[in-house]
Amino acid sequence: MCLFTKHNEILTRALEEIKNRGFWTPYFEIPSSKVYGEGKKEEAINSFKSQLNNRYEIKGLDIDKYLGAEKSPYGFDLGITYPSIDADILVENSKEAMNQWKKLSLDERTGICLEILDRINKRSFEMANAVMHTTGQPYMMAFQAGGPHAQDRGLEALAYAYKQLSAIPSESIFEKPTGKDNPPIVVNKKLKLAPRGISLIITCSTFPTWNSYSALFASLVTGNSIIYKPHRNGILPIALTVDIAREVLEENGINPNLVSMIISDDRTQTQNLVKNKNVKIIDFTGSTSFGDWLEDNAPQANVYTEKAGVNCLIVDNYDNLKGMSRNISMALSLYSSQMCTAPQNIFIPKDGIISNGERVSFDEVASMIANSVEKLLSVDERAVEILGAIQNSDICKRVEKAADIGEIILKSKNIKHPMFENATIKTPVIVKVSAKDKEKYHNEHFGPIILLIETESREDSLKVWQETVELHGAITAGVYTSDEEYLEKVEDIAIEEKVNLSVNLTGHVLMNHSAAFTDFHATGDNKAANCALSNDNFVSGRYSVVTIKRDA
Amino acid sequence: MCLFTKHNEILTRALEEIKNRGFWTPYFEIPSSKVYGEGKKEEAINSFKSQLNNRYEIKGLDIDKYLGAEKSPYGFDLGITYPSIDADILVENSKEAMNQWKKLSLDERTGICLEILDRINKRSFEMANAVMHTTGQPYMMAFQAGGPHAQDRGLEALAYAYKQLSAIPSESIFEKPTGKDNPPIVVNKKLKLAPRGISLIITCSTFPTWNSYSALFASLVTGNSIIYKPHRNGILPIALTVDIAREVLEENGINPNLVSMIISDDRTQTQNLVKNKNVKIIDFTGSTSFGDWLEDNAPQANVYTEKAGVNCLIVDNYDNLKGMSRNISMALSLYSSQMCTAPQNIFIPKDGIISNGERVSFDEVASMIANSVEKLLSVDERAVEILGAIQNSDICKRVEKAADIGEIILKSKNIKHPMFENATIKTPVIVKVSAKDKEKYHNEHFGPIILLIETESREDSLKVWQETVELHGAITAGVYTSDEEYLEKVEDIAIEEKVNLSVNLTGHVLMNHSAAFTDFHATGDNKAANCALSNDNFVSGRYSVVTIKRDA
Repeated sequence: MCLFTKHNEILTRALEEIKNRGFWTPYFEIPSSKVYGEGKKEEAINSFKSQLNNRYEIKGLDIDKYLGAEKSPYGFDLGITYPSIDADILVENSKEAMNQWKKLSLDERTGICLEILDRINKRSFEMANAVMHTTGQPYMMAFQAGGPHAQDRGLEALAYAYKQLSAIPSESIFEKPTGKDNPPIVVNKKLKLAPRGISLIITCSTFPTWNSYSALFASLVTGNSIIYKPHRNGILPIALTVDIAREVLEENGINPNLVSMIISDDRTQTQNLVKNKNVKIIDFTGSTSFGDWLEDNAPQANVYTEKAGVNCLIVDNYDNLKGMSRNISMALSLYSSQMCTAPQNIFIPKDGIISNGERVSFDEVASMIANSVEKLLSVDERAVEILGAIQNSDICKRVEKAADIGEIILKSKNIKHPMFENATIKTPVIVKVSAKDKEKYHNEHFGPIILLIETESREDSLKVWQETVELHGAITAGVYTSDEEYLEKVEDIAIEEKVNLSVNLTGHVLMNHSAAFTDFHATGDNKAANCALSNDNFVSGRYSVVTIKRDA
Repeated sequence: MCLFTKHNEILTRALEEIKNRGFWTPYFEIPSSKVYGEGKKEEAINSFKSQLNNRYEIKGLDIDKYLGAEKSPYGFDLGITYPSIDADILVENSKEAMNQWKKLSLDERTGICLEILDRINKRSFEMANAVMHTTGQPYMMAFQAGGPHAQDRGLEALAYAYKQLSAIPSESIFEKPTGKDNPPIVVNKKLKLAPRGISLIITCSTFPTWNSYSALFASLVTGNSIIYKPHRNGILPIALTVDIAREVLEENGINPNLVSMIISDDRTQTQNLVKNKNVKIIDFTGSTSFGDWLEDNAPQANVYTEKAGVNCLIVDNYDNLKGMSRNISMALSLYSSQMCTAPQNIFIPKDGIISNGERVSFDEVASMIANSVEKLLSVDERAVEILGAIQNSDICKRVEKAADIGEIILKSKNIKHPMFENATIKTPVIVKVSAKDKEKYHNEHFGPIILLIETESREDSLKVWQETVELHGAITAGVYTSDEEYLEKVEDIAIEEKVNLSVNLTGHVLMNHSAAFTDFHATGDNKAANCALSNDNFVSGRYSVVTIKRDA
């Protein structure tokens, strides 16, 4: 059975669900042995252990240079090295593979991509360990965000690409009437897919698969070849991805160099690759400075970036403060706020708010939030499964210097991991800042550093929030208010500044959450990100159509 | 009846036809009084005459500065002046109008846009005169390309915009199961359209409406406001467009400042407008130098450009040389090659070609083409209806200096127009060039200057063609060959360089032709143009979606 037919059901459903945008996921998010196979979890751990301090071999690569020096945020060196191929060779190989790939039919390409996704899904336990020990995510998150949720994102982008391409006929007949007594003018047309070129995917250290699978599958379905450039401390999840993709390609008679990765210790090699005339698509998740550099220095390419933003949350007059504090404490603590969707700036009027008809002071609101965080993280064994480990030492330094930002409301404390004694685990630090001190909160303090910001008034909260987003962008925003008129103003600003908004969340859903098929990740129209995962715009710049016309 | 219902039939059909890409046009292309109304043609001429040497009043603009100094290429000054409003005021008015417009429903916006198109269509005779006497197009072309064909392009873009936006629900319910015994997690979502911002449309002097209606309707349907910046010698067709749009908007209770135009004698005002932070979309047709400047100097905006390209045609071994010469002669002569789709470089092997088993020398092929042009234009009364008038004096100078490029094969001659004695009308000049002299043909000689280029061989023709397109871009390409193997190579290059290709055209269809709903105008992926009219990519960057989520 051809792969397209094999996976047709999932594609058909995906094409519906990108239009519904309710809840749907085809890849099961629970690390269940019923779904993923008896003993698979343990096998995956053993497989991970056997990879440590070894070469990661990728089939079909005849190379003797191996590089890599990843460290697990859980406190040990991975010691894994990966094949390092010269950039110029990668580019030539990539072009050659693309020439074969682009000539396949849309259904052939799509079928192979769906098989790759399926194969990646089956190895979600392996991915969980790879993601956990490069990003520092707690195990459950590493399984979900690194595995099924990332796969959902890939499938979502695949569906958008398929939707667009399948609406373009491969042939058409132009038949123009020329009056009753004359024959029509007839021209035959062939419409040929032209992929844009090599698609370079530069991944980050925190969500290497989740943030890149949309690009991977959008680019592949539209006929491009892929070169991954993983973060130096996030290679393993990408190596596993590349390895699986190549395996499926090879099984189907496709040149596996269609999907490759560059591992280099030479910065200029990467920079040259970015500017290479054959690299026509670049997807990047990471720092604002490198994202801006990419946008300015690769004029030959379509550049899709997700950079830093400053996510804000407004606390206004609101009745359910208990529910609010519980929800915020989880939003702040999850993966130690190392998520591009986590709130950082929390605006609260200096005279406090009204809750159930009574005034609650700024300090009281601050205490409620701080107490909720303390309570949530009071048991170490539970805390480590929420916090994960700190991804890099810069974050630790920032946490330690948080007192420079403002008055400490809740101190960060170090936690011992029961299984990984050298893991770096820190609870969030909460700091109080005045809205007048813009230089303190007009930038991203990546990691578990939370700012409670005293504004002049409810109206001032709106003003300083809007200003922050306009100047610095944001992936998410949130508000707690029981005043529908106030909410209307907040919504208007969210639409004007193009930022997704969470309103009065007190249950399981956090403002951090972004799920494929329901949440567009970023809007693609403020300074934090120039694209959204995924929509028509994420896909439409990855190909063009060449028409060949000929008299009939 | 609401406007959406009134025009629903045409929209439904348009949505189908963008997927068929055969032949379809809803706006009748013949200047027929049966379709457009008895006496309308004469009325339009009288209306045009009454506009000459007068102010063009636009309703609702309280202004006392009027500017304009257009000259008809048919040899007289229009003497029409247009209201000139300060750029800053235009921007403020535009923003205010957009705030109302974006809150309408998709169907409301679409209905109003369809009504604007319909109203523009009804005034096609007026548009014909406006286009003829600013661009120099012959009357029939001015009617068709300036009228119904431009309207087709507008409708096509409208359909793509409607297709995308109508696939995004305005609300959704996220309902996630949490196991048999627990209630699901439910979150309500509102998905709000966020237009990108002010859409600045900078139009050209040759096809002001045809080249801008795609942008106009793509931007309007997606919620943006419009500021037109017409070419200083192409104001009248845009003024008419803006006037009609404002009339329809006002009738429907919409702030008419949603569609406005800037007329200024101060270059810095335009440059500041381009860089204005509220201008988030720029569409431009015109010179490479200004297009490149726009791409580099408006980082806040999505910039869509159609610039100069070098359109090439390969003459290979081919049997029907008579049909070929006739077709080429029309392609070269129509509107004096002042079309961005007209062929300029014609590559012919220096040793000639094989036709019906016999060798035909380079010079013989050249003569056949030259003779066809002479024959086509031998009767002045007919010639002027094909050639139109020369749009500007720079083109005349280039034609006069054509001998500097190479040996003249066919001289340009001046023709008297029977109705407009001061019109500038010139037949094409044909020049012979060696493929080695790249500096002679590696650029656009805009206007009726045709280069027959001697290549080393059939293979060399492919090489020099590919090199030209790779370096300088092209909107179109053509080939005449009876060798299917050779054709395959040509097609592969066309796909690689992303240029639309015409094969062996000998009938009524020319390689210049580009019709909405069947031809993508440009591919959007070579140096001549970064967008195509119209496809998903032309529309998808003009809006984003802001999601507002809230616990149910």
